[in-house]
Formats: sequence, structure tokens, C-alpha cells
Amino acid sequence: MTLTPAYAAADAASPLAPFSVERRAPGPRDVQIDILYCGVCHSDIHQARDEWGGSIFPMVPGHEIVGRVSAVGGEVSKYKVGDTVGVGCFVDSCRTCPQCEAGLEQYCDEGMTATYNARERGTGVPTQGGYSTRIVVDQDYVLRIPDGLPLDAAAPLLCAGITTYSPLRHFGVKPGDKVAVVGLGGLGHMAVKLAVAMGAEVTVLSTTESKRDDAKALGAQEFAATGDGRAFKQLRRRFDLILDTVSADHDYNAYLGLLKIDGTMVLLGIPERPAPVAAGVLIMGRRNLAGSAIGGIAETQEMLDFCATHGITSDIELIGIEKINDAYERMLRNDVRYRFVIDIASLKA
Amino acid sequence: MTLTPAYAAADAASPLAPFSVERRAPGPRDVQIDILYCGVCHSDIHQARDEWGGSIFPMVPGHEIVGRVSAVGGEVSKYKVGDTVGVGCFVDSCRTCPQCEAGLEQYCDEGMTATYNARERGTGVPTQGGYSTRIVVDQDYVLRIPDGLPLDAAAPLLCAGITTYSPLRHFGVKPGDKVAVVGLGGLGHMAVKLAVAMGAEVTVLSTTESKRDDAKALGAQEFAATGDGRAFKQLRRRFDLILDTVSADHDYNAYLGLLKIDGTMVLLGIPERPAPVAAGVLIMGRRNLAGSAIGGIAETQEMLDFCATHGITSDIELIGIEKINDAYERMLRNDVRYRFVIDIASLKA
Repeated sequence: MTLTPAYAAADAASPLAPFSVERRAPGPRDVQIDILYCGVCHSDIHQARDEWGGSIFPMVPGHEIVGRVSAVGGEVSKYKVGDTVGVGCFVDSCRTCPQCEAGLEQYCDEGMTATYNARERGTGVPTQGGYSTRIVVDQDYVLRIPDGLPLDAAAPLLCAGITTYSPLRHFGVKPGDKVAVVGLGGLGHMAVKLAVAMGAEVTVLSTTESKRDDAKALGAQEFAATGDGRAFKQLRRRFDLILDTVSADHDYNAYLGLLKIDGTMVLLGIPERPAPVAAGVLIMGRRNLAGSAIGGIAETQEMLDFCATHGITSDIELIGIEKINDAYERMLRNDVRYRFVIDIASLKA
Repeated sequence: MTLTPAYAAADAASPLAPFSVERRAPGPRDVQIDILYCGVCHSDIHQARDEWGGSIFPMVPGHEIVGRVSAVGGEVSKYKVGDTVGVGCFVDSCRTCPQCEAGLEQYCDEGMTATYNARERGTGVPTQGGYSTRIVVDQDYVLRIPDGLPLDAAAPLLCAGITTYSPLRHFGVKPGDKVAVVGLGGLGHMAVKLAVAMGAEVTVLSTTESKRDDAKALGAQEFAATGDGRAFKQLRRRFDLILDTVSADHDYNAYLGLLKIDGTMVLLGIPERPAPVAAGVLIMGRRNLAGSAIGGIAETQEMLDFCATHGITSDIELIGIEKINDAYERMLRNDVRYRFVIDIASLKA
């Protein structure tokens, strides 16, 4: 075991502070990764503050991890020392259920083992995330970062990237499809870039006009401010697919009315309260309301390779880890365009 | 024009009573049908009592119509005098929008012209339904009743049949699929018969034990009473497809949890109030909540032919039209297994 510098939440009420986390010595199939960058996901805040319940403390958040392999176990065949690799939202799963066998480990019947705020299968030891200098992960749950991607801006691909890529692929977006992205934040800005790269005609739906220029700069063909409600009439039956990235309470029915017949709206955010759905808006257009969670390991690798081919990364603001509590506050004010990434060198200094 | 005996609601508060309705002389593309039987759909009650708003009075309900062709216009090529035919929920649509061109007339961009309680395209004359001895319909909106189907029990296929057949087909039910039917009424009992005929393993979910024997007799392999909540644990992640036929308020989230990963629950009933949907239950299983409305003309014909091949009709109670107001009251008490059908001979007597 190695003692690894980290930042942790001691409990739900405390700011993150310096901490040391024990990392296991690499087992036969393990990859030891020296972390370079870790993205900051909104779910880090929810879990560090125990807003979803059941949080395990002390907690080292972080599941958008990019680093370099510093050691491998004797049976590791996929990676070697020096490789640039990533770790996303989970580090293990049962490997035998129908979903694991289908490459949909995120929907494992026994539950995926999250990168932090979970317990290791077998040992029950709490998992600890990427706000740290090192992590040890089974090779089957490690991703390869393709050459050519800037490593800091690639980190958010491991969560925000795959969370938006997977539904675009699963629901079959093809060139010319009309795709709407609801909300332009960490997830939304990735959704726009990825959908545009897939050839879709992308419209950003945001409550106010403030992000119109950003939406266009990201590649969206159209932008509509939804605050005054007029867009819901003008854009009726317009879209094949809507990716809804908003986790604040909002009216699903208004957005469902923007779908074509047989269109699908995919929820990616979890509002605090269940939202009323009117059966009629689904029935009278054979519309679908779906959800999607991150993506499996194989698809995450496919997404990283797609991003390398198309030169796609996240728009980021790089911070030293000592700024993490400020960053959380700014995220709660939507004051980041569009993702904070921690330079883990700041932990080693 | 011909004056045709009928039963009509004079206004939202009056019981149905004898009435005469004018039917147009058949135009070049029209089929004149002498009605033999008309099924009684729950939506007849909603509309006759103006529970959905906007009802047009006086109103002759009825959209599960079977009869015999008694005259045809000069350009009619599909039907001849003496043919046994049916009319379902709509009698016209725009014919040029993408949905009409795709055989999905029920989702017409201009709105389908309902068989009753709508206005004819062009003339604006109110449409009047099948609680009458005769109807005149454009040949493109007339169905052929295949030989071998008992005509009274075939009538409900025109609405209850196609409403359940279409989503079973659209969402791709195949032999061995696990299908749940929520609610065993007019729609539900048709859903069971049709899904069983498609080779699915069917489970009926009903609030109490009272319909267990019926479910089995209809061909369902399994039955679960949901009233005490235990079924929601026992059947977790069990089903590929759920057809939800219930129009009373109920908790969608509990049923969504019964879907496998990538499973779909299709709403066929419209509860009075929108129902809260928890994003998490959709996201954590990439589940779909969809809706489906009746079916297009081509698919309705396909359904009728399928029913003839498999010997499927509705379980009915045949009534004289003088019993229609009693029948409505019994339907509101769920006291019918499973569909009232009016013997239109009772109107001619």
C-alpha cells in the first residue's frame, strides 16, 4: 500500500481539505496510475455534501481522471508503464450479468462499483477518487487516452463526454437529424460538440439569451431562449432527439411537445423532485421519454477515439486543488465555462 | 342525404336518446355502410359527457363499427356492395403530411378527423359515429373484415384491438419476450390475447386477485396482484415491454422499475392528472416511457388479418341500444367482461 496525497471531505458539512489515502499495491490485473488531471463534476458536490444520502466519509471525490501508468501487475496485458490512460465513473462491476457481458457495465445487476463513494467488491474498502496523486484500477476498467488530445481538457470526457456520447449513439443520431440540447453547462456543451461532429443539426435550448453566442461558437446551428415560452410553439414537432442535461426542476411536457412523431427525449440530469408527465403528449406523438447513464467501458473507449479523430475536448478552466472549494461555489452559481479541471501537480508541490 | 336512426347525447348532462342523423349521399370515393354492430369504448363516455372539453353536440358516439357495404361511389375500387367492412377511430386526415404518407394517419400534422365529435375536412359538418344504422366514409379509411371473424366480437378490434396491437408491433415484441399488461379491461384483455399470439410470455398486473383466473384463461402465463406492493420487488427488471392500459391515476415509477435495461413502458390510457416521473428510474436502466395512439389504416388492416389468422376477437356482451345508458354506468363500475357491443338491429326494429 502507498499513502497518497489527496483532498477529502471529512463529512457532509466540511469543505474539502488535504488528506492522505491508502492505495493498494497493484494486484496481478491492476494498473497503477499517477494522476495528472481530474475534472470536477457536479455530482462531486452532491456526494461530498451527502445530498443523495448514503455518502461514505472521509471521501475523496473525482471520476474524470487522466494520468500515466506507473506500474502494472503481472497479468496486465492492455497497458504498460508510461501509457496515458483514463478512469471514469466506475472501477469494477460483477462482470457476469447480462449487462456486463453486453458492455453495459454501468447497468450491472449488482451495481457498478463507483470510482469513489462506493465499496470495493470483496474487501468492502471504500473507493476513493481522483482528487489525489495516484489510483490503482483493474485493467478492464481503464481507458486509453488517444494521442493528440490535450490531457487536461480530455479529463471531462470520462464523465461529461461519455454521458452525452452514449445516448447520441444509442438513439441513433445520424447526419441531418435535428437534435436539441437542453441546458448549456458541463454536459450540454459536450453534447453540442459531439452531436455536431456526428452531423446533426443542433439547437441549444436555454432559459435566457446569455448563452446564444457560446452555443453558436460550439457549433450549434440554432439557439432558442425558452424563458418566455414562445419557443415551445415555434419549435413544435421539430426534433428527432432531445438531450435534457438539466438537473433543476423543469417541465418535461413542454419539451416533449418539441419532439417529432417517434422522437425521444433523453434525461441525463436528476431533478430533486419527480416531474409530472402528461400521458397525452407521449400518446399523441408516439413519443419516448428515456434516460441514459454514462456509458460502458468499450463505448467510453470508442468515444475517446471519436474525440481524438474530431479534435473534441471539453472547454475547461484549470485550477490548483487549493481552489476546489471556491470552484464548488462557482459551479453552484453556473460560473464556469464549462468545466473545472484540477491540475494534480498542485497536490505534489 | 339520408336520415339515419341513431342514439345521440343532446348535451353533456343528458343520457343518450333516439335521434336522427343526416348521412351524405356517397361521393365518388365514398363507401356507404349499413352498420351491424358498434362497440362501446370508454372514450365514448368521456366525450358524450364532455369530460375532455370541446365536445360537439348533439353527438352520436361510436368508433368500433362493423357493417355491410350498401352503396359505393363511382371511383371506389376497394370495396363493393355486400362487402363486410369496418370503421375505426378516424374517417379522414390530411393525406399529405409525413405521417399520413407513412401510414401513421393517427398522428396527422393537421389532426386526424375523428369518426365522431370532430368536423369534416372542408365542410366543417360534425362527424357522427356508429350508434346509428348507416355511415358514409371515404374508401381509404374503411377496413375489410376478414372472413371467419364473428362480426359482433370483431367490432372492438377497430379501437381496443389496434390500440394494443400497434405498440406490440412497433416496439418489436417477438417470441419469448416478457410482456406485462397493466390493467385487465377492454384494452388489457385484447393486449393479452394479441401478445400471446405473438409468442410473448405475458404477465397481467392487476390491483387485486379478482382477475387471476380470467388472465390465465386469456392466455397469460403469469398474474400478479400489485395492491400490496410486493410484486414490485419480486418482478424487478423482469419485462421487455409493459403495456399500461390504465387511465386512473397510478404510480408510473413503480412499474418502470419492472422493466429490464432498455425496456419500454407504453402508456395507452390518459389519467386525469399528469403523473410524477423520477428521472433516476429511467436513467439507471436506460428505460423508456412511451405512448401510443390507436394505429394507422394499413396497420389496422394488418391487425384484422392477424386476428382472423389467430382466431382472436374481443370478449363481449351484446346489448340492444336501449341499454346504452345502463351500459355506461356498468362500465364506470368495471362491470363488463370485457366490452359492450351494440346490436344495431335494435335500432332498426
